[in-house]
Amino acid sequence: MNAKESIPPISQYHIAPQTGIAFTVQKGQTIRVIDVEGQQVADLISFARQNPEEYLSSGRSLDYNEKLFLSIGDKLYSNLSNPMLSITRDPVGKHDFLFAPCSQEMFQLTYNETGPHPNCLDNLTAALGPHGIRACQIPTAFNIFMNVAITAAGRVTVKPPLSEAGDFIDLRTEMDLLVGVSACSAGKCNNFCCTPIRVEIYR
Amino acid sequence: MNAKESIPPISQYHIAPQTGIAFTVQKGQTIRVIDVEGQQVADLISFARQNPEEYLSSGRSLDYNEKLFLSIGDKLYSNLSNPMLSITRDPVGKHDFLFAPCSQEMFQLTYNETGPHPNCLDNLTAALGPHGIRACQIPTAFNIFMNVAITAAGRVTVKPPLSEAGDFIDLRTEMDLLVGVSACSAGKCNNFCCTPIRVEIYR
Repeated sequence: MNAKESIPPISQYHIAPQTGIAFTVQKGQTIRVIDVEGQQVADLISFARQNPEEYLSSGRSLDYNEKLFLSIGDKLYSNLSNPMLSITRDPVGKHDFLFAPCSQEMFQLTYNETGPHPNCLDNLTAALGPHGIRACQIPTAFNIFMNVAITAAGRVTVKPPLSEAGDFIDLRTEMDLLVGVSACSAGKCNNFCCTPIRVEIYR
Repeated sequence: MNAKESIPPISQYHIAPQTGIAFTVQKGQTIRVIDVEGQQVADLISFARQNPEEYLSSGRSLDYNEKLFLSIGDKLYSNLSNPMLSITRDPVGKHDFLFAPCSQEMFQLTYNETGPHPNCLDNLTAALGPHGIRACQIPTAFNIFMNVAITAAGRVTVKPPLSEAGDFIDLRTEMDLLVGVSACSAGKCNNFCCTPIRVEIYR
């Protein structure tokens, strides 16, 4: 079931810096998310293909895995407590599932940006809009390669991603899904250089 | 603006063990959530009074406060990045904002409960239903008094609450809100004894 280097993907998507895409996948396929140039975060969200009211849930996934940092062997759950994705390969091993996608308001609050700024919330909303998803339905994303350090006292600090050029994660789909992926636009998350993301789908 | 012992509340609600309530509050009022008998968690969620598409967001609140454990002086934000609630008094000082409200499916997955079990998701949905809120709109709750220990490696462990009988938290409302509160039904969260919660509203 895992993606193999020798078998070509059945589809692939290039995500330009600071943009997003949406696509559908069938149960049992594998989504490979590739950091093309290194130190780039990809925000990933998902919805049950036939039911947009079932969506990726950070709150359930952290609970059922009893940890904040999910990696190989862990499952990402929906708000209805069904497995949506399983992490089957993960050479990088550090991702975030705490933070909401960056938004125009986040750039104003955190970076004091007053003008319009590309952001994951708008990118995901634009990509998923044709599938009937609205901004208020965008959940906390699985922030692939986002490197958040925590202390036992609960302080959180965003660090540069550990991913290098070509690093990837494989996610096996546990149900038919509608997926959104955004190449993150925030400074701190991406070591202050926003680069592309590639997605490959394997049978 | 803070609740004062000498001024009677303008309204108060008793939440029987393993049940939930909904109520509205105006900007500038204070919601006091009281652990009546001690070691009892209260799941609290909120929606903008005039716009159910604006709701309490764990993902934004953890980001903007740069910490996992919110306490006095911290603000709880909406998905639109507006402050909804400010913590103005907090003698206990330990609450959770990571876990989704317990649900029927959670009891099956975590406790191997096969029969129906009271749970916060159903209680909040039932209480907020008459206000037009559906189950899929219930976000990760601010789990008052829930005591989650974490390690720097990200392991999470649910411990008994630190709250004793009569302990409370004060939340000042930063906008007009529709609020749901549930006296949590889960074993581990409440040191295996589910007791009532009282809510008082101060001007």
